[in-house]
Amino acid sequence: MTTNTGNPGVSGEARPVIIQKYGGSSVADAEKISTIARKICDRADTGVSMVVVVSAMGDSTDHLIELANAVTGDTAPAARELDTLLSTGELVTSTLMAMAISAQGHPAVSLSGQQAGIRTDTTHGSARIADIRADRLRRELDRGRICVVAGFQGLAENEDVTTLGRGGSDTTAVALGVALNADRCEIYTDVDGIYTTDPRLVPSARKLAEISYDEMLEMASLGAKMNPRSIELGAVYDVPILVTSTFEDVPGTLIHGGEQMMEVRRAVTGVAIDRDVAKITVRAVEDRPGIVGQIFMPLAEAGISVDVIVQNASLEGLTDVTFTVSQGDFQRALELTRQVCADMAQDVVGNSGLAKMSIVGTGMQNGPGYAATMFDSLSKANVNIEMITTSEIRITCVIDASSIKDAANALHNAFELDAAGD
Amino acid sequence: MTTNTGNPGVSGEARPVIIQKYGGSSVADAEKISTIARKICDRADTGVSMVVVVSAMGDSTDHLIELANAVTGDTAPAARELDTLLSTGELVTSTLMAMAISAQGHPAVSLSGQQAGIRTDTTHGSARIADIRADRLRRELDRGRICVVAGFQGLAENEDVTTLGRGGSDTTAVALGVALNADRCEIYTDVDGIYTTDPRLVPSARKLAEISYDEMLEMASLGAKMNPRSIELGAVYDVPILVTSTFEDVPGTLIHGGEQMMEVRRAVTGVAIDRDVAKITVRAVEDRPGIVGQIFMPLAEAGISVDVIVQNASLEGLTDVTFTVSQGDFQRALELTRQVCADMAQDVVGNSGLAKMSIVGTGMQNGPGYAATMFDSLSKANVNIEMITTSEIRITCVIDASSIKDAANALHNAFELDAAGD
Repeated sequence: MTTNTGNPGVSGEARPVIIQKYGGSSVADAEKISTIARKICDRADTGVSMVVVVSAMGDSTDHLIELANAVTGDTAPAARELDTLLSTGELVTSTLMAMAISAQGHPAVSLSGQQAGIRTDTTHGSARIADIRADRLRRELDRGRICVVAGFQGLAENEDVTTLGRGGSDTTAVALGVALNADRCEIYTDVDGIYTTDPRLVPSARKLAEISYDEMLEMASLGAKMNPRSIELGAVYDVPILVTSTFEDVPGTLIHGGEQMMEVRRAVTGVAIDRDVAKITVRAVEDRPGIVGQIFMPLAEAGISVDVIVQNASLEGLTDVTFTVSQGDFQRALELTRQVCADMAQDVVGNSGLAKMSIVGTGMQNGPGYAATMFDSLSKANVNIEMITTSEIRITCVIDASSIKDAANALHNAFELDAAGD
Repeated sequence: MTTNTGNPGVSGEARPVIIQKYGGSSVADAEKISTIARKICDRADTGVSMVVVVSAMGDSTDHLIELANAVTGDTAPAARELDTLLSTGELVTSTLMAMAISAQGHPAVSLSGQQAGIRTDTTHGSARIADIRADRLRRELDRGRICVVAGFQGLAENEDVTTLGRGGSDTTAVALGVALNADRCEIYTDVDGIYTTDPRLVPSARKLAEISYDEMLEMASLGAKMNPRSIELGAVYDVPILVTSTFEDVPGTLIHGGEQMMEVRRAVTGVAIDRDVAKITVRAVEDRPGIVGQIFMPLAEAGISVDVIVQNASLEGLTDVTFTVSQGDFQRALELTRQVCADMAQDVVGNSGLAKMSIVGTGMQNGPGYAATMFDSLSKANVNIEMITTSEIRITCVIDASSIKDAANALHNAFELDAAGD
């Protein structure tokens, strides 16, 4: 058996625990795995206990899905089988990474989701973590080993393998951080942090040194596409999450609890952009109790998520109801709504080329005037606002997709987001 | 959940259990998997409970080994990690096959080695099955599901994944046959059965309708390269094993207990050929107790398997010791033996271009003259015999590799193996 030769005499329990997560593009081939293994060894040599969570290599998951589709033809692959199939991608990376670390001289062991003690419910394809039995992880760390955990997967009570859905490896990483009381969870990706807005649209976009959990949840569509569930987990258990670049040595962005924010507080932290918006308007529908339920229940039953909903003030007992869906659901939602409303509304119309522009910031919740400034700056940039919706720390305007760039620049300037901050 | 729609009212426990095993070339792509799924469904519709054991697709195992070598460079990959890595190949096939069977209308479920209850010792790379906890398999079969089990793998007591070594999926299949008291274990391969000898060398070679476990063990190097461990298992628990073709509809060869042999018994069942033989001779070594141990212990410590050993009668206190090794071990074995014998023998010489020709048959054990007939026919074919070794049901001659074809034809004729039998 391999023993801890790297840090003789240093007890595992005394050392801080660091969780690192590497996404698929970071571990796309053997050379990248070896490069990262070298960095992991160097980091472990600084005297920390390390748990490394890995995703499947590059596009290997897509390849497995292709195979599943090829053998099932017109029928959808069984979710239980697809979960076990896809889980092999992360097993491959975790064993290769453990081999690569060992080959570079540091004891390491790979652990499947099951071996890492990740227990989930039985919702195949998007299982929720129910419990983490971290005994084995702690034992391996105490022996001085670097633990390489296959991300994205867990084990249900019935011994079946489950997967955690899109971005599931982020969730694995943060959940292990919670279970092991880690000092920090580090997410390595192909972007180098979280920006005030999309740098491709606004050249003066600035990388944030830090951001609060709440703001990050609202900005989830910005830059690093972090899994919202992992941010929620980090927020509830207060595990700081660093989002940074795999191959560039840059500081990244730290997502953490708002109270300890070192950065000078500004009201607006960033401008979030969601390009995947379509709008449906039900015109002149009777304004009576239960009517909105009658419109939306069939959409829910068809698995279509409705996002923003706006209902105009009633006029002569009739009202307009407007809501947004993703562009992929647009045609289906439009047809379904037309069927449902055939006898109770004048007309159903839609438009799929829209976007949501949001300003996000915990500082907004106690201050007035942010909405006014937003509307004013969009107006001066000749951007027409189609819908408005707000939360405690966010104001969102639905606009035409052709105005995204103008709107992003106008808002970024209006709230002085390019001012030096870090 | 899927329920048994295929055979309503038919209780699982009343139905005979059939185990099928498909090798890597049989499941090399999605199309082949779909074709086999169709055959499996048709078979299940005849009213049998089916367990299907699958190997990794085509050359996917080689691809994983390449990746492992790429990330470890000069050091060997850790055996524990390699086992989990390689086990993913069979997981991929088993889930795809279960999906394909379900898509064609029959309820199916994939089971990993762990889920199929295969418990092993911790010898990574060549683990031995310690126990099979078949509860879940029985439960799934009782529900009318076809169980698709990932071959080649098991779980050690410490929750680590193990693999069963070369040909391990055959062992999985026969072991499950034992645990489930199966009627028969069917091994589907790219050959269509076991032949009296290699048909490429002897055109009149005849496919055997049946062969005993003992004979098959001796002939293991013939035609279908069955794993000897799986044949041993079948023999001990009397599970008949059918070796047959995946894509051709031919009868194949049934390996079973000698007593129930239906075929007219003949003394010699087949001629086995092993082309991978090298010979080393230690000349004029002192003939005293312990000397042979001194020669062979260093070879064992170096992991070199020695096969045939012959020691000549002593002359003036000196003797010659000759032994065979595989050609891959030849150079290393020669150098090692030269070092070891430097001070105690006159000379060490070797020759790597040899082969073993064996006649095999349970009928030989009580009859005389088989050895004489063998030597005579080889002599008439001008084949020089370099070494001779025998077992209860086998006589083996080591010959020069250039004589293989002549020897095989001479022996096949001498023992009338081309006579009609099936």
